[in-house]
Amino acid sequence: MATMTTLKGDAFDRQLFESVLKRRLFFTEAFEIYRLSPNFKGDNRGLFDYGPPGCALQANIVDAWRKHFVLEENMLELDCTVITPEPVLKTSGHVDKFADWMCNDPIKGDYLRADHLVENVLKARLARGTRGLVKDSSKLDQATTDEYNGILAQIDNYDGDGLAELIQRHDIRNPENNNQVLPPSPFNLMFKSTIGPSAAAPVYLRPETAQGQFLNFKKLLEYNQGSMPLASASTGKSYRNEISPRTGLLRVREFLLAEIEHYVDPKKKEHPRFREVADIVLPLLDRDTQLSGKTTPRTIAIDAAVKSRIIDNETLGYFLGRIMLFLLRIGIDQSKVRFRQHLANEMAHYATDCWDAELLTSYGWIECVGCADRSAYDLTVHSKYTGTPLVVKETLPEPVKVEEWRATLDKKLVGPRFKKDAKVIQSAVEALDQSVMERLAGELGRNGAVTVETPAALSDGRTSPSFGIGRILYALLEHVYWHRPDDVARAVLSLPLAVAPTKVLIVPLSSNPQLNPIAQALSARLRKLNIPNVIDASSASIGKRYARKDELGTPLGITVDFDSLKDGSVTLRERDSMVQVRGAEDDVVIAVKRSVEGTETWEQVTARMEVFRGREEEEVRIA
Amino acid sequence: MATMTTLKGDAFDRQLFESVLKRRLFFTEAFEIYRLSPNFKGDNRGLFDYGPPGCALQANIVDAWRKHFVLEENMLELDCTVITPEPVLKTSGHVDKFADWMCNDPIKGDYLRADHLVENVLKARLARGTRGLVKDSSKLDQATTDEYNGILAQIDNYDGDGLAELIQRHDIRNPENNNQVLPPSPFNLMFKSTIGPSAAAPVYLRPETAQGQFLNFKKLLEYNQGSMPLASASTGKSYRNEISPRTGLLRVREFLLAEIEHYVDPKKKEHPRFREVADIVLPLLDRDTQLSGKTTPRTIAIDAAVKSRIIDNETLGYFLGRIMLFLLRIGIDQSKVRFRQHLANEMAHYATDCWDAELLTSYGWIECVGCADRSAYDLTVHSKYTGTPLVVKETLPEPVKVEEWRATLDKKLVGPRFKKDAKVIQSAVEALDQSVMERLAGELGRNGAVTVETPAALSDGRTSPSFGIGRILYALLEHVYWHRPDDVARAVLSLPLAVAPTKVLIVPLSSNPQLNPIAQALSARLRKLNIPNVIDASSASIGKRYARKDELGTPLGITVDFDSLKDGSVTLRERDSMVQVRGAEDDVVIAVKRSVEGTETWEQVTARMEVFRGREEEEVRIA
Repeated sequence: MATMTTLKGDAFDRQLFESVLKRRLFFTEAFEIYRLSPNFKGDNRGLFDYGPPGCALQANIVDAWRKHFVLEENMLELDCTVITPEPVLKTSGHVDKFADWMCNDPIKGDYLRADHLVENVLKARLARGTRGLVKDSSKLDQATTDEYNGILAQIDNYDGDGLAELIQRHDIRNPENNNQVLPPSPFNLMFKSTIGPSAAAPVYLRPETAQGQFLNFKKLLEYNQGSMPLASASTGKSYRNEISPRTGLLRVREFLLAEIEHYVDPKKKEHPRFREVADIVLPLLDRDTQLSGKTTPRTIAIDAAVKSRIIDNETLGYFLGRIMLFLLRIGIDQSKVRFRQHLANEMAHYATDCWDAELLTSYGWIECVGCADRSAYDLTVHSKYTGTPLVVKETLPEPVKVEEWRATLDKKLVGPRFKKDAKVIQSAVEALDQSVMERLAGELGRNGAVTVETPAALSDGRTSPSFGIGRILYALLEHVYWHRPDDVARAVLSLPLAVAPTKVLIVPLSSNPQLNPIAQALSARLRKLNIPNVIDASSASIGKRYARKDELGTPLGITVDFDSLKDGSVTLRERDSMVQVRGAEDDVVIAVKRSVEGTETWEQVTARMEVFRGREEEEVRIA
Repeated sequence: MATMTTLKGDAFDRQLFESVLKRRLFFTEAFEIYRLSPNFKGDNRGLFDYGPPGCALQANIVDAWRKHFVLEENMLELDCTVITPEPVLKTSGHVDKFADWMCNDPIKGDYLRADHLVENVLKARLARGTRGLVKDSSKLDQATTDEYNGILAQIDNYDGDGLAELIQRHDIRNPENNNQVLPPSPFNLMFKSTIGPSAAAPVYLRPETAQGQFLNFKKLLEYNQGSMPLASASTGKSYRNEISPRTGLLRVREFLLAEIEHYVDPKKKEHPRFREVADIVLPLLDRDTQLSGKTTPRTIAIDAAVKSRIIDNETLGYFLGRIMLFLLRIGIDQSKVRFRQHLANEMAHYATDCWDAELLTSYGWIECVGCADRSAYDLTVHSKYTGTPLVVKETLPEPVKVEEWRATLDKKLVGPRFKKDAKVIQSAVEALDQSVMERLAGELGRNGAVTVETPAALSDGRTSPSFGIGRILYALLEHVYWHRPDDVARAVLSLPLAVAPTKVLIVPLSSNPQLNPIAQALSARLRKLNIPNVIDASSASIGKRYARKDELGTPLGITVDFDSLKDGSVTLRERDSMVQVRGAEDDVVIAVKRSVEGTETWEQVTARMEVFRGREEEEVRIA
């Protein structure tokens, strides 16, 4: 696992970090007072509520996302329902295949996610250096160590049979009690319910927003007056009934997704705005680098990466660049981002390329944005079921002759061999697009056999691009967290103004009743300018109130003191440097407004305003 | 039913109106291509997707709501999970009592909502003027007409037994086939699922956001440094499995709620900002007016209404005023708003007063915001279950002696009489607060009996205040819809700039390739100012493109023409008046920016810029 350091180079201490988030109510376990009650027999794992600062931070990240992607490119925004009738998700493949493998411990009654079970047990054995099997505490030899590491490196590649085989061969048991577990069985990750009074119509909570976007394709195309390219976008809650969620906000059962579907003519993958991102240098952990066993990404300009075909095409390159810009804009640490390309065997048959933006956290590298170049698979299957054509018609200047690839299955062979699965295979083959068929035809010529994945492969490379807002938010909080030198108790969250929950804290220096009206008027004035601000008129010392604001990530502080009564001046404090300037209220308001708009830096503010040294002593004293 | 006219006094034509919304993809039936498929056996009723303009309008209404309520008063915002463990909603009373009565037609297999069945059948008989029973098509006599009208006037007051009695006495049958229906049975309106792999833990989709707010009360109070008053706010999807949803967006199964919980000391219901709303005149359909059989609200200033106790207290008056200001701000027609007070028998025992903001639509007056003054009922029941105290501690200057009301049940009498319901009654009595107990004690003295409602009454007056965003959005669209004189096909949606989906349409006059770069640069410039804009470079005539923009409610249009190439000037068109001004691009951008900020009116723009008459002809020609 990669080690994490804070912005200032100190070791990242997750326990301290979490105590800040909890104290400041960024988020909290949902239904905690119920879970703590001895009467409660329920399951609230993987469910989190956002408190005031988390809620505002989330809203600001989504707002930044909308501005950066949706408004910037006039994407067509949709808000589709979470409740989804079963036939839709049957067609998309989710009902049959959107599952994880789980093992039941029949004695304890526990359910364990099979890949996590194997991973945890093997990692523990490696850490202890012993086999640790029942009646076998012999030291691990080099061959076994290598074997374990080999399994761990490709843990995502095992299916149910593969996991069953590993569990048996390596005698993997429930680590809590050493009980043997039953062989893995698939567990569908969707929450199921029924709609209407008869309870005869099953529905699911959507596992992604993409299906709603696909189903509205025809209407969106009409709305777009029939013209391509066309991009739709959605933000909304999605649901996955994780078998055993842990790791806080990184694996939850209810989460906010922000997804884009950018439809292009498969023959025209250039992008008109490609030049705007061409020179951005990205850290790419591409397929070849991974296969050569390296974990250090190569840093390369997007332009060069597309030219050398590391990135498949301009449109994909454009989106990777835009994703990078978005992450930096909200405050993600550039040194903790990498783009990892899916390996061929991770990738669904309908994808020609797929990249994940991964962010480094104290839990390791976490996939936070998926960006897949996918074919028309979903539109094709929905179109087939409904009989509604989900295609774009283009009038060509003159008629063209088309040669098409056609894949035909010999039903006499397929039927008896695959029985009830034959239909799934038939659909998958029918849904192949021309470029994939061409590739498969080549392979068929060379190898005499090809593999066509059925919708089982849906769990990879499905969205294009798809942002896990909760994961991004959590990684961001880790990235901006640090503490004042030599004082771990004085935490700071260096959130940029663009996403900080509150922009300005207004502090009356004392409880003198003359100061409060000035603070109130100033607060109303900033509110009129749409600048979120809070007054802290509590009796705590000024230093303590600043420290609280720093933990909330509030970038600016305005203090109203006794000089304010005399000459109308106030002080403005910057969170990270703790530097203060003093000036007339009007000048300070202008500095705040420009800072929020991004038209003036703090350096510019300190250059044009008088630096104030009055309260440094108090700041030091509480340290 | 009240009749609706448009802004311009024409009769409101719902069919024409809906054709505009459909054509412009404000919203659409969810999963429509599936429902239209002959294979589909599911239920998508009461599920709607928002298309691009609807989605932006919804986002802008929510944004206006957040600014108006949450940011303006520094309310503590929460984002809680939709998935809710069963024990929480069992405690709140929803599992046992959040139900509608429904009748099964055992022959056809239909399920009908019982109150709607009675309502529809009696209304149809009144309209036809005949009894219309089987073997009885005699004319309605005056006594029966009066009886029917009497039932309809209080249809909300019948419980299951009452509805059963009506159905039997008046021989009410399924109007579609004249089948007899079975007696009403309760149908719980919550969607149920299970969480986790064992399927042993039942969960529901929340029917409101309020419960999540109550459960976080203790943490919010700590976050607020223990001080009161305290207000929390949430926006989020909520779910009700309606028996038979019709009437479009007005009765849906998945909907967006925006809710506030404002906690006050029950002894201190003054509001520090009351003066700001005191002079606002509201149309109040108060309890006395309704009981006297009148349907015309009295218009009265909030101050006077609180003084004369029509509105119970300052805090409630303050919120009613703020709700009115919010509705006007987003473009609701002031003449189509009224505030209706709940009658005593509609109101839950824990509410001391409850008002609904109702908006006039073509479906009649629709409850869009509920605003209840409720006691500590929810906090009390959750506190009892979990053992977590959900109370505020206040340090008093000196000790006080307290006399309290205590309600004690004689268990020997209650147990045998109410059997399994005794526990529910016990909880309800324990949850009564002091002011309610005082009222009940008075009634008990006068009448020798009081009625204490059990959580059955939850369905009324539950949220304080609670905004149905979808209903408000739909009513708003009806309110701002009209058409050009003498041309019903040229619709306009007069959405205010604050909530209009797109603020500016940019139109290059012709397909001349020199015009497009100017349009593109202008679009980027407006985007930098955070002003949502769209370019329409389609080949349609300028008049048709303006007409399309009017149907989308886009307030401003900028046209780039051949003079723009010569002197850099462009024209700016206002949607409602179709008046255009011409000026340098810089001046036009300033006019747009000020209009969006609300610092310049269109009158001021036309006063300072040159009015342009060049394209009136084309506007007229397409008419």
